[in-house]
Amino acid sequence: MAKHDTQLSDLFHALADPTRRQMLTRLAEGPAPVSELAGPTGLRLPTVMRHLSVLEDAGLIATAKDGRVRTCAIVPEALTPMQAWIEEQRSIWEARLDRLDAYVMNLMKEREK
Amino acid sequence: MAKHDTQLSDLFHALADPTRRQMLTRLAEGPAPVSELAGPTGLRLPTVMRHLSVLEDAGLIATAKDGRVRTCAIVPEALTPMQAWIEEQRSIWEARLDRLDAYVMNLMKEREK
Repeated sequence: MAKHDTQLSDLFHALADPTRRQMLTRLAEGPAPVSELAGPTGLRLPTVMRHLSVLEDAGLIATAKDGRVRTCAIVPEALTPMQAWIEEQRSIWEARLDRLDAYVMNLMKEREK
Repeated sequence: MAKHDTQLSDLFHALADPTRRQMLTRLAEGPAPVSELAGPTGLRLPTVMRHLSVLEDAGLIATAKDGRVRTCAIVPEALTPMQAWIEEQRSIWEARLDRLDAYVMNLMKEREK
């Protein structure tokens, strides 16, 4: 449970940055060398490497070095735990009488005025 | 697009913390006062309020004050953009010849050894 929790935190944290999401979107088209991922970001190489390291630590990408070139590729199954968590929450949330919640919250907001 | 991007970042960031996910799981059962959400965390009230404020800023919860009691409730539709993003990525990723990617990465890792 604790391990699963850390994994979820790492995944959500990795996706909380638009540059990292942009890198993943590029990698969805196929593996790419670091230089190609760095290009559109306009960021310096050390910053790019830090973003890639966050993605790799979360298990979202794998990297391998061939000579002086490091190539990155997505790990498609990495999204599974996050997707499962969101879907589980969503089904619980929607099963609730959320209209009643909204109604109660509105009533309370009205009283607050 | 920029606005959508910020919204996604806020949502992923809000869910990247186990305490905040725990609060959402509790709220999935129904609205609750801050004191009830604070209880199981063992955190001091200002810290709890900061977590709740991150959740509220991301649009995941709504809060309303009735006298001295602030009540929180989930906003079920808040998960939609995040779920859509993950599902879109996933379908792109899976459509790719990911087995070929894995094969190439393994080849490269072998050469690295």
